[in-house]
Amino acid sequence: MKLVNAVRCFDGEQRRYEHLSDTLNCTMQFSLYLPPKALQGKHVPAVVWLSGLTCSDENFSSKAGAQRVAARLGIALIIPDTSPRGDEVADDDAYDFGKGAGFYVNATQAPWSQHYQMYDYITKELLDLCHTHFPLNGKLSISGHSMGGHGALIMALKEHDQFRSVSAFAPIAHPSACPWGHKAFSGYLGDDRAQWHAYDAVELMRQGHKCPPLLVDQGSADNFLAEQLNFSTLKETVEARHFAAQLRLQDGYDHSYYFIASFIEDHLEFHATYLND
Amino acid sequence: MKLVNAVRCFDGEQRRYEHLSDTLNCTMQFSLYLPPKALQGKHVPAVVWLSGLTCSDENFSSKAGAQRVAARLGIALIIPDTSPRGDEVADDDAYDFGKGAGFYVNATQAPWSQHYQMYDYITKELLDLCHTHFPLNGKLSISGHSMGGHGALIMALKEHDQFRSVSAFAPIAHPSACPWGHKAFSGYLGDDRAQWHAYDAVELMRQGHKCPPLLVDQGSADNFLAEQLNFSTLKETVEARHFAAQLRLQDGYDHSYYFIASFIEDHLEFHATYLND
Repeated sequence: MKLVNAVRCFDGEQRRYEHLSDTLNCTMQFSLYLPPKALQGKHVPAVVWLSGLTCSDENFSSKAGAQRVAARLGIALIIPDTSPRGDEVADDDAYDFGKGAGFYVNATQAPWSQHYQMYDYITKELLDLCHTHFPLNGKLSISGHSMGGHGALIMALKEHDQFRSVSAFAPIAHPSACPWGHKAFSGYLGDDRAQWHAYDAVELMRQGHKCPPLLVDQGSADNFLAEQLNFSTLKETVEARHFAAQLRLQDGYDHSYYFIASFIEDHLEFHATYLND
Repeated sequence: MKLVNAVRCFDGEQRRYEHLSDTLNCTMQFSLYLPPKALQGKHVPAVVWLSGLTCSDENFSSKAGAQRVAARLGIALIIPDTSPRGDEVADDDAYDFGKGAGFYVNATQAPWSQHYQMYDYITKELLDLCHTHFPLNGKLSISGHSMGGHGALIMALKEHDQFRSVSAFAPIAHPSACPWGHKAFSGYLGDDRAQWHAYDAVELMRQGHKCPPLLVDQGSADNFLAEQLNFSTLKETVEARHFAAQLRLQDGYDHSYYFIASFIEDHLEFHATYLND
């Protein structure tokens, strides 16, 4: 693993690392924020952030304003990329499939299965790597935006012993039932709907998976709300399962990082309740 | 003037406008943040932010985290571009001259003089436009980064009745005495050093210009500190003139927006002291 750069930020450090991923079969970069407390040698909890379509690990790092809050709360931020990378990795011209659009699943279909194993990469390899090399105390929560908001939901549902809490901004809540998810899941997972349901948050809830405490924010002026995000289906499913959850419709907010920046403090404070317990 | 877009941010609005500038002789875009108080119909003070080399009006908007603080303090943010724009505008291949590098001066040399009139554009045309169209109360402060930190200094020194306070992050404090400034000033202003000194903050201070209350932050790990920024010359000059000023060397910080994000709250609170007076 190689440190690509490190800059001071709110008395902590914003770092970028490069490493060869065995799971993804390619060289990956990820970002990490260590709060002042961690630089002073203490072991701290971490929030994993999963980004949306077209993003790398740098969008959240540079636009969300999360470090200020993470510094204050003594929480590390682990920020993976959104897909495998490199010239040898299969790609697609569209913004919503291939590189930048891994959808946090383990692909089973050629040619994608060779590299697109983002679910295992994050839940196993990357988190192991971070716990081996950084001053983390093993307590984890997870959050994300859009495609990454859904990634956070499925990881929390499928690995609910690993994550103490989960939150999402405008998640693609039910990919089996929207155009983005249809395209990605049929490409990466084939035509068998049962395979799709193993990576669909609403379906996992319906199947009986447990869910850690949950916070979701959704902007009412989000251009993708009607066609892609299935917020009301998520709300109904969460209520039917009686999960400890807050799902908030935020008046006038869109799908951008300006929306995320406006509410990231709420989300990190929510996670801190469980991480510092 | 045309509204390009508007998104909700911390209960205020982040907007982008396009207009035909008479001063610059081209179509320009600028960004504006209106805090919740302004959306409720009250007139608010504003901070003008001038960005650094290679930036547009969008870098500060998306990366500094300023809106959270501006919302709380009830301050609007006016964020101009860094040069004239468009296919008809003369340019240079370098990142530090031509488009994205207007240095906030009125060029006198061909071909630059036709469009590169950033000093007049901001101090006259853009501020007039903003006061005509938006709920501003006329109270103004100014801040900026690097090239824009210097732009803020010279505007505050030359128009000290217009700005109640001034601040800068890592300003190119004495452009007549560094490579970036040498290149830009000889290109835009010719070889006559007297013309350079009319746009050089250190020289303007030496000439006896008054300065509004001043705050400067400079990172100690800034790659440009030794060769380009002349922080110690600025400090000596400010002290010699006995200006009401705080110049702070921030340990371990670099030249990036992570540095700006870490201290923008201090700067806006500093300006609020004078704007809400």
